[in-house]
Amino acid sequence: MKTIKPLRERKNTAILLIHCPDRQGILATVTEFLNKNKGNIIYLDQHVDRQEKTFYMRVEWELENFAIPPGKIGEYFDTLIASPLKMTWKLYFSDEIPRMALFVSKMPHCLFDILARYTAGEWDVKIPLIISNHELLKPVAERFDIDFHYFPVTKENKAEQEQKELELLKEKNIDFVVLARYMQILSSDFVKQFPNKIINIHHSFLPAFAGAKPYHAAHKRGVKIIGATSHYVTSELDGGPIIEQDVTRCSHVDTIQNLIRKGRDLEKIVLSQAVYKHLQRKILVYKNRTVVFN
Amino acid sequence: MKTIKPLRERKNTAILLIHCPDRQGILATVTEFLNKNKGNIIYLDQHVDRQEKTFYMRVEWELENFAIPPGKIGEYFDTLIASPLKMTWKLYFSDEIPRMALFVSKMPHCLFDILARYTAGEWDVKIPLIISNHELLKPVAERFDIDFHYFPVTKENKAEQEQKELELLKEKNIDFVVLARYMQILSSDFVKQFPNKIINIHHSFLPAFAGAKPYHAAHKRGVKIIGATSHYVTSELDGGPIIEQDVTRCSHVDTIQNLIRKGRDLEKIVLSQAVYKHLQRKILVYKNRTVVFN
Amino acid sequence: MKTIKPLRERKNTAILLIHCPDRQGILATVTEFLNKNKGNIIYLDQHVDRQEKTFYMRVEWELENFAIPPGKIGEYFDTLIASPLKMTWKLYFSDEIPRMALFVSKMPHCLFDILARYTAGEWDVKIPLIISNHELLKPVAERFDIDFHYFPVTKENKAEQEQKELELLKEKNIDFVVLARYMQILSSDFVKQFPNKIINIHHSFLPAFAGAKPYHAAHKRGVKIIGATSHYVTSELDGGPIIEQDVTRCSHVDTIQNLIRKGRDLEKIVLSQAVYKHLQRKILVYKNRTVVFN
Amino acid sequence: MKTIKPLRERKNTAILLIHCPDRQGILATVTEFLNKNKGNIIYLDQHVDRQEKTFYMRVEWELENFAIPPGKIGEYFDTLIASPLKMTWKLYFSDEIPRMALFVSKMPHCLFDILARYTAGEWDVKIPLIISNHELLKPVAERFDIDFHYFPVTKENKAEQEQKELELLKEKNIDFVVLARYMQILSSDFVKQFPNKIINIHHSFLPAFAGAKPYHAAHKRGVKIIGATSHYVTSELDGGPIIEQDVTRCSHVDTIQNLIRKGRDLEKIVLSQAVYKHLQRKILVYKNRTVVFN
Repeated sequence: MKTIKPLRERKNTAILLIHCPDRQGILATVTEFLNKNKGNIIYLDQHVDRQEKTFYMRVEWELENFAIPPGKIGEYFDTLIASPLKMTWKLYFSDEIPRMALFVSKMPHCLFDILARYTAGEWDVKIPLIISNHELLKPVAERFDIDFHYFPVTKENKAEQEQKELELLKEKNIDFVVLARYMQILSSDFVKQFPNKIINIHHSFLPAFAGAKPYHAAHKRGVKIIGATSHYVTSELDGGPIIEQDVTRCSHVDTIQNLIRKGRDLEKIVLSQAVYKHLQRKILVYKNRTVVFN
Repeated sequence: MKTIKPLRERKNTAILLIHCPDRQGILATVTEFLNKNKGNIIYLDQHVDRQEKTFYMRVEWELENFAIPPGKIGEYFDTLIASPLKMTWKLYFSDEIPRMALFVSKMPHCLFDILARYTAGEWDVKIPLIISNHELLKPVAERFDIDFHYFPVTKENKAEQEQKELELLKEKNIDFVVLARYMQILSSDFVKQFPNKIINIHHSFLPAFAGAKPYHAAHKRGVKIIGATSHYVTSELDGGPIIEQDVTRCSHVDTIQNLIRKGRDLEKIVLSQAVYKHLQRKILVYKNRTVVFN
Repeated sequence: MKTIKPLRERKNTAILLIHCPDRQGILATVTEFLNKNKGNIIYLDQHVDRQEKTFYMRVEWELENFAIPPGKIGEYFDTLIASPLKMTWKLYFSDEIPRMALFVSKMPHCLFDILARYTAGEWDVKIPLIISNHELLKPVAERFDIDFHYFPVTKENKAEQEQKELELLKEKNIDFVVLARYMQILSSDFVKQFPNKIINIHHSFLPAFAGAKPYHAAHKRGVKIIGATSHYVTSELDGGPIIEQDVTRCSHVDTIQNLIRKGRDLEKIVLSQAVYKHLQRKILVYKNRTVVFN
Repeated sequence: MKTIKPLRERKNTAILLIHCPDRQGILATVTEFLNKNKGNIIYLDQHVDRQEKTFYMRVEWELENFAIPPGKIGEYFDTLIASPLKMTWKLYFSDEIPRMALFVSKMPHCLFDILARYTAGEWDVKIPLIISNHELLKPVAERFDIDFHYFPVTKENKAEQEQKELELLKEKNIDFVVLARYMQILSSDFVKQFPNKIINIHHSFLPAFAGAKPYHAAHKRGVKIIGATSHYVTSELDGGPIIEQDVTRCSHVDTIQNLIRKGRDLEKIVLSQAVYKHLQRKILVYKNRTVVFN
């Protein structure tokens, strides 16, 4: 499958995600810093939340010709810019390919969609492993040559199994986790290990129909539109920061089975769009909301 | 303004809305009845809810050449078809123009949208009066030559004022009520007088953000899509059968004020679409859900 | 992969697709015929095009208890109903699983989406083979255990290669063909062998941007929405009857590469929805337009 | 009607719209300039088209405390920043309320929608006059107390009538023109007087169905989605830079009359959104495409 060429062209860039209390001149200060050091900005987006008086920014620049060596950028930026302006910031490099773990249960549609993109080279990501609480989707993992780890979960063994999963994730240097219709609630302890680094897909237009069986609830309520929501997982069930949502029309002719069928197409697209944004380092989380840059 | 011609062409038709326990042959029985009596069917739509085992149908036929005189159709249909099949049914005639009352408070956008359609002859409806708990929109009513009745409502006088409103509606032979952003909760007693005949617009994608200040709640939750919902009013707040919903995208750049602005366009279009469906007799209500025929 | 259960429940049904000149009583005649012979109707939808004076209908009924044996239904229906009413009709049985051939070139996203649904048991279909004018996607076919046939096409050998393809399709009893981003124009001769049985996905909102490089054209024109269109192939390029369309927003920030990326998600969903409707026998074609029942 | 309060809060700001050849440091240069002179930036958005190597920017800052007096900003900016960087730029002040002329023919829906927003104080705009080639909508203008000018147009008198219209627009100091379903093609001479200052609404999803009777064409082609497009008028019919588009679903059940009815709701919302963006000075035109800032 290596014959399928990715669409992207590779550039060596650095990406800064910043938020801080708003005040005059932040933007000028940051762009001047990059400019003076010969960093060619290829993307800049910023947002000011006037209610919260908070400044958000994403800037990406080419490393070629940049005066500060990559290994020193963080230190210089922190000393010269971030500390004085009380910034919270993260620095990424485009040549560091993130490592993602997939959690699945029985439904294959999101898994297939992600593996298809992965195989086709659509995303810059590595998927070293798939974890599941069922064995059903093992053949899919095999078909795409990805390690499949089976961790059956019961009330009794949940803490223990999660511990093993965490060890495995650590061993494999996993950066973030995608729950591709994983039908187990992760414990607070697990979630705390990956803050804003676990992406879930919920099969409703949150906050409507949080929790179990949202299509049944939607059918009962007689809604005319159903949706899907991708969000970061927090300790509050289906309450984490929303990354992406989409909807589709339905009507009285749709049975619950038909809502489930229509919903699958929403779920896989919405989840993949959220993962893509995460991979591009375009998401900032602040006070349980996301800033998703364009 | 009479110079603005309506788009519709007038035909004299009868419309039957039916629901009943499902069993074989209902459709054949009804169409045969119309057929034998020379009723040219110009529209037929039916739906079977297999879970509820219920049959729904809307059929419209031309009165010209129909063997049964209009004043007798109800009786004949009930005796020959509806009673044996345990049908719940309603009969309408296209030449009976429904009479609608508008309830408003301070926001004019839905009111303007409805009055513009009314004035342009887009709908077959009469609007004998507007009722409001504020005087602010009186000039709009005057501009469109419609009687404006001011009923200020307090905790103390609410029951009394609603009584006066009901008398006025009765006096003016009002068939149904449209709450065009009326910011008062109608009492159960009021609602009971107009079962499935009060149409409300709620400024959220119900059941998300029911109750007050939905745009504030949506902003706080950080949703990526906002919506509006038109529904029949029942005694449960924002819990009645949903007629129509629509949504629009938003993002972190949208302030609450901007969500309100975007939402207004949704609200007026969704409310008007619901009213239009109601006027066309295309809505059946059953167990707090609607069947909205095409 | 057989462990992944399909969602559908199997019923043995017959499906009739009918169109004919409109006149009074057609619906009653058909439903009576089924009714008298103890055919329990589980789905009925009909449409009258008043401009064209044409009646369209899809009816599906359970074969259990039906008085006429399956092998005789066509004959009886033709003699008793269709001939007198000058109907054009097709009869299908739900236990006949259609056989579909996939044509692909270099882009894998539609292929992956279809094979994922196929593998997961989402559709009642058989896919005996994939045909391609490139070898690039052979590994995908192998991964899903489907025969892959490579037919390189040049100006000179096109007629000859198409002939071989047709023979192969005949040999494998293929019912219909899906062009999953097949980047070769099929000849009129080929198309005639599969009238309204070749489904294509075009990567624009037809009729805008027909022909080659639609995303480049859309970018140049500065549209704010892009789309994808699935249609039956006729001898007119991108001019056949439209089955399904969908759109997504874009803006000045989207490069051509980004339009291509966004468009892929549209293409695969729109194509799969069209194939699903086709598999359900829900599409009637008349005068280069489709009636797509719900 | 003055009792209806606008939603906006008034701030005295200046707005710069800029485009120029892209090179390093433009953003830093502009923000530094504003920063040094104590201009508090309340909005900044920029876009780089890498293919065209062009930089686009919109920046808005508070005039309070700004060191350069409003009347001198243009001169200073041009000398210090724009000339050296070869910028094309426009400067606006939020306290200059634009003056808009409406052109209409027979259809009132867009006119009503705009006048409703105007009356409700939704927009910061003045509408000194309405021009029409028919007398039909005069009563609407009167109802909203706006001058109505009737200019019947024939092949013979077109040039002469347009000349009178232009004189009237000049006399009334009109800044820009909105064609609210004006069914006359303006001459190139007329259009040249208002470059990128005439906003039209076309009742199709351009470039599909340009020209006359788009709903008839859409019906004939059997599309599953219809649209509306607002664009600046150029000498090429329906070929000018697109500002905003939106779509809605349709199907085989929709007659041409029904497409027209559905389309009206699209047209009025799309046109009003385009006018709103124009009023906010959020649109830049470059090479027949628009940059529409958020």
